[in-house]
Amino acid sequence: MAESEVKLLGVWASPFVIRTRIALNLKNVNYAFLQDNMAAKSELLLKSNPVYKKVPVLIHGDKPICESLIIVQYIDDIWTSGPSILPSHPYDRATARFWAAFLDDKWYPATRVIDDAEGEEAKKAAVDQAVEILVLLEEAFKKCSRGKPFFGGDQIGYLDIVFGSFLGWLRARETIYDIKLLRQAKTPDLVKWAEKFLQHPAVIGAMPEQEKVTEFARVILARMKAANPPK
Amino acid sequence: MAESEVKLLGVWASPFVIRTRIALNLKNVNYAFLQDNMAAKSELLLKSNPVYKKVPVLIHGDKPICESLIIVQYIDDIWTSGPSILPSHPYDRATARFWAAFLDDKWYPATRVIDDAEGEEAKKAAVDQAVEILVLLEEAFKKCSRGKPFFGGDQIGYLDIVFGSFLGWLRARETIYDIKLLRQAKTPDLVKWAEKFLQHPAVIGAMPEQEKVTEFARVILARMKAANPPK
Repeated sequence: MAESEVKLLGVWASPFVIRTRIALNLKNVNYAFLQDNMAAKSELLLKSNPVYKKVPVLIHGDKPICESLIIVQYIDDIWTSGPSILPSHPYDRATARFWAAFLDDKWYPATRVIDDAEGEEAKKAAVDQAVEILVLLEEAFKKCSRGKPFFGGDQIGYLDIVFGSFLGWLRARETIYDIKLLRQAKTPDLVKWAEKFLQHPAVIGAMPEQEKVTEFARVILARMKAANPPK
Repeated sequence: MAESEVKLLGVWASPFVIRTRIALNLKNVNYAFLQDNMAAKSELLLKSNPVYKKVPVLIHGDKPICESLIIVQYIDDIWTSGPSILPSHPYDRATARFWAAFLDDKWYPATRVIDDAEGEEAKKAAVDQAVEILVLLEEAFKKCSRGKPFFGGDQIGYLDIVFGSFLGWLRARETIYDIKLLRQAKTPDLVKWAEKFLQHPAVIGAMPEQEKVTEFARVILARMKAANPPK
C-alpha cells in the first residue's frame, strides 16, 4: 500500500489530532491532511466515524481508524521500520497505556473545570486540582524516563506524544487566564521535558505555533463562555 | 518468574475483574485470587493502585498493573506461549480496541441509566437506548467474526472477553427488571455468540454462576436505589 494512500481527517488545533500527526512524522509517513469543519462535518467524516463523528480519523487505504490513542498504536504497529512508539517491554507498555488513559480521563476534564470556574476562589481551586494531576505525572516521569530526557527514554514515545499534544492549550490557558500550570515549582522535570519535547523535529512539524494556538484558544474559550453564561 | 508470583486483586462479581480472570485462564496462568473488600479497601490495593484505588490489579512479581483493558493486553503481551488474545493484524487490533473502549464508555453507563430510570416510560426509553448500543455491537460482530462464532474468529479474543464479562450483569438486569436486552429480535448473532462464549472452558472457570450474580445484583441494585431515592 503506497504511503500516499494515507489520509488524516482533522482540525489543526486539536490536541487529539496533533498527537496522530506527531506519530506519523516520527515514522516518516507521508499523508494528506484533510481539514474538517466541526460546524458542518464532512460526509467523509460521518462515513468514517459513524459512532462518534469525531476527528481524528486516519484513513489507510480504504480503512478508517478512529480514536487518537488507538490511531497512535496503529501507526506504531503498521510502520514498524520507523522508531518504536510504544515501549518494548510489556510492563513499560502497560505503564505508558495507563498514564495515557489517565491523561485523557483526568487532564482534559480538569482544564475544562478551569474554563468554567467563576471568581478568584473557584479558579484557584480548579488550578490547584490541575496541578495535582501534573504532580502525579511528574512522579510518573521520574519512573518512566529513568533519568533520560523523555518518558520514552532517549527518544520520544507514546506517553510523550499523548501528554505533549496538550502543551499548546496548556500554555494558552496559562497566558489567557494568567495562571501557572506547568511553570510552578512542583514539576521542574516536566518543565524541562516540555522544552525538549517541543524542540523535537517530529513535534515541530506537527504542532502549530504557540501564538496561533493561544489566539485561537482565546476565541474558542470566550465563545464557550458566552454559550454557557454563569448561573 | 514463577507463575505462582501472579496475584490478582479483585471482587468476584465485577465484570472488570472477570475479564482479567478469563484472560489468565486462556493463557493457563496459575494465580492467587485475593478477594478485596470494597467497603474497607486493603492496604495492598491502596499501595498497588494509588491513583484509582480500584480493582482489578494484577500483581506480577512485585509489579502492579491496573485498569482491566490494560491488564488483558499485558497478559497477552507477556504470556506469549498461550493463544493470542489481540488479533494479529494491526487493523483488526485497532478495531478490537475501538469496540472495547466503546463498551466501557457506553455500555456500562447505559445499564446504570436503566437502574436509575423511574417509571415505565423512563425505563422503556433507557432499555431502548441500551438496545441501540447492542445493535451497533451486532454490526461490529458481523465484521469482526467474518462468519466465525466469535469476535476473535474461531477462538475467543479481546473483544469477546471485554464484552462477555458484562453478560452476567446483563442477564441479571433482564431478570430483575423483567426486560429484554440481548434477547430481543434485533441481535440474533449476539444471542448465539453469548451462548457459545459462556460455554468456553476459560470462561466457565472465571464466570460466577448466573443465579449467584443475579442474587448479588438484586441486593446491590436495591442498596443503590435506597441510597439515591427518586427526587
